[in-house]
Amino acid sequence: MDDRVHPEVRRTATEIDTMEIRGAATIADAAARALRTQATESDAADAEAFRAELRATARTLHETRPTAVSLPNALRYVLRDMSSTTVEGLRQSVVDSADEFCARLERAQADLGQVGANRLRDGDTIMTHCHSTDALACVEAAVEQGKHIEAVVKETRPRNQGHITAKRLHELGVPVTLIVDSAARRYLNDVDHVLVGADAVAADGSVINKIGTSGLAVNARERGTPIMVAAQTLKLHPGTMTGHTVDIEMRDTAEVVDDDTLADLGNPTVKNPAFDVTPPRYVDAIVTERGQFPPESIVILMRELFGEGTSEPWAEPSPRAEP
Amino acid sequence: MDDRVHPEVRRTATEIDTMEIRGAATIADAAARALRTQATESDAADAEAFRAELRATARTLHETRPTAVSLPNALRYVLRDMSSTTVEGLRQSVVDSADEFCARLERAQADLGQVGANRLRDGDTIMTHCHSTDALACVEAAVEQGKHIEAVVKETRPRNQGHITAKRLHELGVPVTLIVDSAARRYLNDVDHVLVGADAVAADGSVINKIGTSGLAVNARERGTPIMVAAQTLKLHPGTMTGHTVDIEMRDTAEVVDDDTLADLGNPTVKNPAFDVTPPRYVDAIVTERGQFPPESIVILMRELFGEGTSEPWAEPSPRAEP
Amino acid sequence: MDDRVHPEVRRTATEIDTMEIRGAATIADAAARALRTQATESDAADAEAFRAELRATARTLHETRPTAVSLPNALRYVLRDMSSTTVEGLRQSVVDSADEFCARLERAQADLGQVGANRLRDGDTIMTHCHSTDALACVEAAVEQGKHIEAVVKETRPRNQGHITAKRLHELGVPVTLIVDSAARRYLNDVDHVLVGADAVAADGSVINKIGTSGLAVNARERGTPIMVAAQTLKLHPGTMTGHTVDIEMRDTAEVVDDDTLADLGNPTVKNPAFDVTPPRYVDAIVTERGQFPPESIVILMRELFGEGTSEPWAEPSPRAEP
Amino acid sequence: MDDRVHPEVRRTATEIDTMEIRGAATIADAAARALRTQATESDAADAEAFRAELRATARTLHETRPTAVSLPNALRYVLRDMSSTTVEGLRQSVVDSADEFCARLERAQADLGQVGANRLRDGDTIMTHCHSTDALACVEAAVEQGKHIEAVVKETRPRNQGHITAKRLHELGVPVTLIVDSAARRYLNDVDHVLVGADAVAADGSVINKIGTSGLAVNARERGTPIMVAAQTLKLHPGTMTGHTVDIEMRDTAEVVDDDTLADLGNPTVKNPAFDVTPPRYVDAIVTERGQFPPESIVILMRELFGEGTSEPWAEPSPRAEP
Amino acid sequence: MDDRVHPEVRRTATEIDTMEIRGAATIADAAARALRTQATESDAADAEAFRAELRATARTLHETRPTAVSLPNALRYVLRDMSSTTVEGLRQSVVDSADEFCARLERAQADLGQVGANRLRDGDTIMTHCHSTDALACVEAAVEQGKHIEAVVKETRPRNQGHITAKRLHELGVPVTLIVDSAARRYLNDVDHVLVGADAVAADGSVINKIGTSGLAVNARERGTPIMVAAQTLKLHPGTMTGHTVDIEMRDTAEVVDDDTLADLGNPTVKNPAFDVTPPRYVDAIVTERGQFPPESIVILMRELFGEGTSEPWAEPSPRAEP
Amino acid sequence: MDDRVHPEVRRTATEIDTMEIRGAATIADAAARALRTQATESDAADAEAFRAELRATARTLHETRPTAVSLPNALRYVLRDMSSTTVEGLRQSVVDSADEFCARLERAQADLGQVGANRLRDGDTIMTHCHSTDALACVEAAVEQGKHIEAVVKETRPRNQGHITAKRLHELGVPVTLIVDSAARRYLNDVDHVLVGADAVAADGSVINKIGTSGLAVNARERGTPIMVAAQTLKLHPGTMTGHTVDIEMRDTAEVVDDDTLADLGNPTVKNPAFDVTPPRYVDAIVTERGQFPPESIVILMRELFGEGTSEPWAEPSPRAEP
Repeated sequence: MDDRVHPEVRRTATEIDTMEIRGAATIADAAARALRTQATESDAADAEAFRAELRATARTLHETRPTAVSLPNALRYVLRDMSSTTVEGLRQSVVDSADEFCARLERAQADLGQVGANRLRDGDTIMTHCHSTDALACVEAAVEQGKHIEAVVKETRPRNQGHITAKRLHELGVPVTLIVDSAARRYLNDVDHVLVGADAVAADGSVINKIGTSGLAVNARERGTPIMVAAQTLKLHPGTMTGHTVDIEMRDTAEVVDDDTLADLGNPTVKNPAFDVTPPRYVDAIVTERGQFPPESIVILMRELFGEGTSEPWAEPSPRAEP
Repeated sequence: MDDRVHPEVRRTATEIDTMEIRGAATIADAAARALRTQATESDAADAEAFRAELRATARTLHETRPTAVSLPNALRYVLRDMSSTTVEGLRQSVVDSADEFCARLERAQADLGQVGANRLRDGDTIMTHCHSTDALACVEAAVEQGKHIEAVVKETRPRNQGHITAKRLHELGVPVTLIVDSAARRYLNDVDHVLVGADAVAADGSVINKIGTSGLAVNARERGTPIMVAAQTLKLHPGTMTGHTVDIEMRDTAEVVDDDTLADLGNPTVKNPAFDVTPPRYVDAIVTERGQFPPESIVILMRELFGEGTSEPWAEPSPRAEP
Repeated sequence: MDDRVHPEVRRTATEIDTMEIRGAATIADAAARALRTQATESDAADAEAFRAELRATARTLHETRPTAVSLPNALRYVLRDMSSTTVEGLRQSVVDSADEFCARLERAQADLGQVGANRLRDGDTIMTHCHSTDALACVEAAVEQGKHIEAVVKETRPRNQGHITAKRLHELGVPVTLIVDSAARRYLNDVDHVLVGADAVAADGSVINKIGTSGLAVNARERGTPIMVAAQTLKLHPGTMTGHTVDIEMRDTAEVVDDDTLADLGNPTVKNPAFDVTPPRYVDAIVTERGQFPPESIVILMRELFGEGTSEPWAEPSPRAEP
Repeated sequence: MDDRVHPEVRRTATEIDTMEIRGAATIADAAARALRTQATESDAADAEAFRAELRATARTLHETRPTAVSLPNALRYVLRDMSSTTVEGLRQSVVDSADEFCARLERAQADLGQVGANRLRDGDTIMTHCHSTDALACVEAAVEQGKHIEAVVKETRPRNQGHITAKRLHELGVPVTLIVDSAARRYLNDVDHVLVGADAVAADGSVINKIGTSGLAVNARERGTPIMVAAQTLKLHPGTMTGHTVDIEMRDTAEVVDDDTLADLGNPTVKNPAFDVTPPRYVDAIVTERGQFPPESIVILMRELFGEGTSEPWAEPSPRAEP
Repeated sequence: MDDRVHPEVRRTATEIDTMEIRGAATIADAAARALRTQATESDAADAEAFRAELRATARTLHETRPTAVSLPNALRYVLRDMSSTTVEGLRQSVVDSADEFCARLERAQADLGQVGANRLRDGDTIMTHCHSTDALACVEAAVEQGKHIEAVVKETRPRNQGHITAKRLHELGVPVTLIVDSAARRYLNDVDHVLVGADAVAADGSVINKIGTSGLAVNARERGTPIMVAAQTLKLHPGTMTGHTVDIEMRDTAEVVDDDTLADLGNPTVKNPAFDVTPPRYVDAIVTERGQFPPESIVILMRELFGEGTSEPWAEPSPRAEP
Repeated sequence: MDDRVHPEVRRTATEIDTMEIRGAATIADAAARALRTQATESDAADAEAFRAELRATARTLHETRPTAVSLPNALRYVLRDMSSTTVEGLRQSVVDSADEFCARLERAQADLGQVGANRLRDGDTIMTHCHSTDALACVEAAVEQGKHIEAVVKETRPRNQGHITAKRLHELGVPVTLIVDSAARRYLNDVDHVLVGADAVAADGSVINKIGTSGLAVNARERGTPIMVAAQTLKLHPGTMTGHTVDIEMRDTAEVVDDDTLADLGNPTVKNPAFDVTPPRYVDAIVTERGQFPPESIVILMRELFGEGTSEPWAEPSPRAEP
């Protein structure tokens, strides 16, 4: 680690690395606070040194978990305006941005829930896929608004996260119908919304979410059922602004079939992708804590939050970037 | 039972009723043979009496399992031409039709397999849903033709019949990739055909098949992948010629979730439909032992095989039907 | 008129011409009976003369109303098999065909109603456009089957035939919601079927029906709502088998706007087409008294009923037709 | 009313409430001027008091007509930057914003007309639905540019606002063809653009407009005809940024059918929604006085004009909003 | 060659083989006449021997050009009814069928032209791809019917057969606009029909035609332009009834790029498929001399003309085929 | 020319006019530098005079080539912030903007290439249309990233620019398959991306590119193949923000057919449009040097780069524009 990095920040980096700090929101919060600490504790001699120090700090944090979506989002947000020419100005900017980021983060899911709930009408039935606390927040807020909501819940093989969703909805007093994933099309004409979360949202408006989301969305469009995606801005993936695609994790085949059965089947190849990619044309709205957006415009929100995707605040400035 | 019905036929009827005789093809074969027996053994005085006797026999057989698709198909086929004016003529017609029906039935799956195999090219990859011996027959014939075929096999929740398909394909030497149902869209661009069977085919060209087929077909069309349905003419549902819809069996919820889990989830409603309905516009070809057909023309084959759907050979003639 | 034509037939022809005989079914019935009369009363010397005489009779009848769909249908049906080589054989064929035609005609709407009713399930809501007794027959039969049916009725400008439909449905005990034509899409997600009649059905599977049908069908498909067309085989237009298109009547502009208003608007052109053309891909099933058909296969039913469309039974044989 | 509110502003509020001030643009203009008056007349002691006073004023105005789209737009625009820390700075900001808003409003329709006219080519035929002065402004500007434009005008039941459109187009020298609403699809292949206005535009890109617009748009897409929506930014509905849906007014049934006829029909339910919702995927461009936008990006213009939708300038700050 | 084959038939077979007899219609005519000759000259002792002899003859003819579509069509047509039990009966059947086939063939294109012309209205503009005498026959007949027709002609790389079409249309007095293939979509909104021929039509309704047809058809559907295919029944490919696919000829790369250029480009692979496959859902009607058909019903016409596709009249009966 | 325009700027204007300076990027660079020169050399007395002088300069430059896309882009970018109230401030703004513009321009294609390359995965096959250095830059960067890329190259009649693409790809070590334009659909299932450039991108998200692009895009969507457009922001057409459409150049007919052939064909009209318009719904991403964007959001990037499209920096301020 760079020795300009403050010991407290180092500790945070280590804890992210060892997964003591985990979960998209928790990681993001810790990273923003770490940058704030670095800024307040810095004794950099001038603006340039301060900037270099913060960049190094961001780099240290970023390297702990380079594929997490929320971590670079926090770093980008906190460092998005480093234009001040004084150390004090820069320090203030970092502190303000970090405070703003953490404050927003704290209330983001509740705010998102309000926005999503506003799209739901009293008496609506939703269909869910997988488990998403962002999607749940929309239903919870709708119930708090006094709306009666019902749900058709897909079990979501291979890990049956639909069971968690069913249980949470039951706790909210929402009547649940549980179905296998393949039964979705049969019930799409009976529901008013498909409501899912997102693991990441890309700059081209694609939604990366639990495997099966894209097939559901295509069928929902064919049946005339609108589909809404609940995703905090934490899920917006800045790397995609520069064309990077999101790696799709291939998970353990044992989730799909146990070893004895596998042998009995002649040991076929098993492919178990965790996520798939839903093109924006099959999504009606992405609901965030900043309001709702058609997926095709989400890149503009990304630019607003993180600056132009072409620069990474933790990267050493390349010669060509300073003309 | 009507006392004109021959004891041997009665025995057959009882065995169908008690499910000693089971399976679509076996039932159909037994029913055709029973009508043949009745015809050869009949001592009816005149053509009218002969016709009435055969109608009664058909009625007896039909009532044993009124929702099976293959049973009325056999009865309709064997009794489709009762226009002769002599007992001998009628007897001969029944015997010939029954023999023809049984002979066709015996080789139907192999013939169908040839037709389906002809649609597959060397090197093709197919995607399957559920387990269908008709679909398997196509692959088997293709392999016998020396074609290299690979397969992506959907597990087909809730009963995982995809495992049987995977095993059979393995035995045929076909390399298999096993996936959960939700992963289908992700792999559709990599396959050349979706190949499924059918539980029934309706006069409007709809295909009734294992739940999940229609959602798969919609996605296959969206991805530009052709979908073929392998279905012996035994699966053509004559009742649908007169607009009847096919009842969709709702199966035991325990197939979807066990009771303990169910209780833990707050006892949601579970819906477990066995089948769904794929509209003809999402099917490229229905492969039968009589050749391949676009689904929109299958009604014409039905009429050819079973006569106009408006009359049921086991029904007492209504007054109005004899103007 | 050709003097071979029997006086009674002449009278029928005149009554069709003067519209004493009117209505698709009534005209068809009268035409079939007229050919029967001619056949029974003919004293033609040989088969050729008999055939020529019947052709002349058909021509006489056809010329009274050359654009009606049901008239040529009746003529084609009755004269479809003129292959006998004896006068007696021909006479018998005409008499049998005419009797069969009239008998079928008498019960066609009721039979059609049964077929259509079978497609409707208890609790279904339909949407209607214009007024069609064939479509009504489906609802009536469904109600008689004990099914509860509700209806959303489009008023169907400019002549508001939807009002008649609303009234008849009310008399059948069907709860009705009346809407303006433009409100259809908003309610399509709430209905289970669009159910309309047809003025004519073409060999390419197109449905010619009241203006607005095609726009409704396109929206129904987009919303995932199936569309069924109720049309007796009388509405199948044999001329379309040889590529002829159906002329669309342009009706009086006063149906759209009265003269004073027209003047006030600066006398715009008013176009008031009576019908439009719905392509087969937007229709799920055509319900006839002979069963239901996907629109793409209706041409085969046409050929079965009327023979190959290329010959018209009232036309003098052209030299080239006798190789 | 809050006693900080200036008497002149109170008068304006009362006049909006009693509908002496009416019409989207007039209301917006009055509201902006009222805020300006309040700002210039305010004797608030400090920035915080000034802000609170302006909020109270906005609240007073907003409550007079809480469902109008243009009123909150004016309030949001004028109060969008209240970041100054001095009373003078805030006052100047309000005055400048109000002046800018009123100036823009005055020329908005003409500017919009220019943009829309630029999309039309000489010789184009448009199809219209309902009556929209924004849409008319496009045609007027095109005519002034010397382009020959023709129009197919839908009458737009139930209130026949198409007649007004026909008349205005006639006055502009545009040849008009008047049709019933149901005839639209038949003429869509003959027109180059569908051109409609909007009652409101939502953040998800949906266009709320006269009932029938969405069905027309779906058919226009199916026929390959582009659809443009002419809507001043006044019609952008900021509440939709936070997921709120636009209430669809249900109008008097007497617009659809008179009472005598209704009784004759057996008193069916009549539903008479004033508007429907067209999803953005069926709209090619929204033409505003700020330029044209694909509907999917209109939310960004909303944010630019009104700030983030999550805060309402007339709302008392909630504790949580001040971290 | 089988020594039962008559010397005259042998001569015909040789001439087909050496391409002295060439062109789809000429080959079919010669084959039918050869079977007729064989039948009239046969001195077979009994029906079985006669059938075997004719099968051998058919086999001899078929082997001369096994991939031609028209040759098996002729053989199947002439031998479709071999059910007579006497030599005389069989001979008569072959002679009659051959005469009928040749007579139909002679007038097929003109008859087809009439049918196609009936679909065209006065003032229509068509778009063509490649050169097809069947398609031309439609235009010629329309012109003879006094209709004014205009044409947009695609040049049809690589062999520019569009030039021939342009020339022929010019000779018919049809104003022509010539475009490169890539310009088709731009002009599709200006044309009323896409009109193309076919090299073969498959049982699943697919149309095999000059490379580029399928891409044109997809665009025509997207633009709302109907597409008609003109194809004599000679082009119906009976092998496809049993699932066989039509081999797509890969032609000489020199048609695409000359050798010098190729070398200059670094010797890329060049692929030059002669045909492509248009799915039935992109074709509105197939126009034949037997009338027009939706592509989904063409399999029924195939069965009518050639019998069930599963048997080939030139094949030795397999043991299993005689139960 | 306005005499306030500096002689060096005049020279530049002349060289653009005479096409000594040509190519989109070169023209833009020259124009930006010219404005910089004017700003540094100006001796305007006050801010207003300075602004008027720069406007005149821009006007002079703009008039040299009013239909080029890159020229107004350069002018708008350099003059986008003229809000300073001092000559010095304005001068500095122009110099900074011009420097920034030129610096960005210099590295734009390389930056764009990185973004596009990130969308390509190792092993992907692309399909290209026409020749685009922007598209090539994506492939080049991907190859530099160590990815194996293959290409199907459409020849792109009439000028065969696909040959240049094939050659350049060959030089990059990319295996190429060359096809005629009409063969595209047949190979679309084998490719992972369609990758094309753009001549201009419009504010409504439409892509103006070489004739044939739109037809290719429609087919790519139908086959499930994503389409990416590589276009530097230089190609964004600011005039389209105010609804202006892009004029499509009609090129020499001799590119399509030589005069002798033309005469032989009866001198048909030849239409040879250089470009066509692809609607945004058929494009998955527009790749620029500023990152990737869904086409529906590109208008927001335009506004960011060029300001609101409604004002043209070279236009004399209209009276109404100064309220």
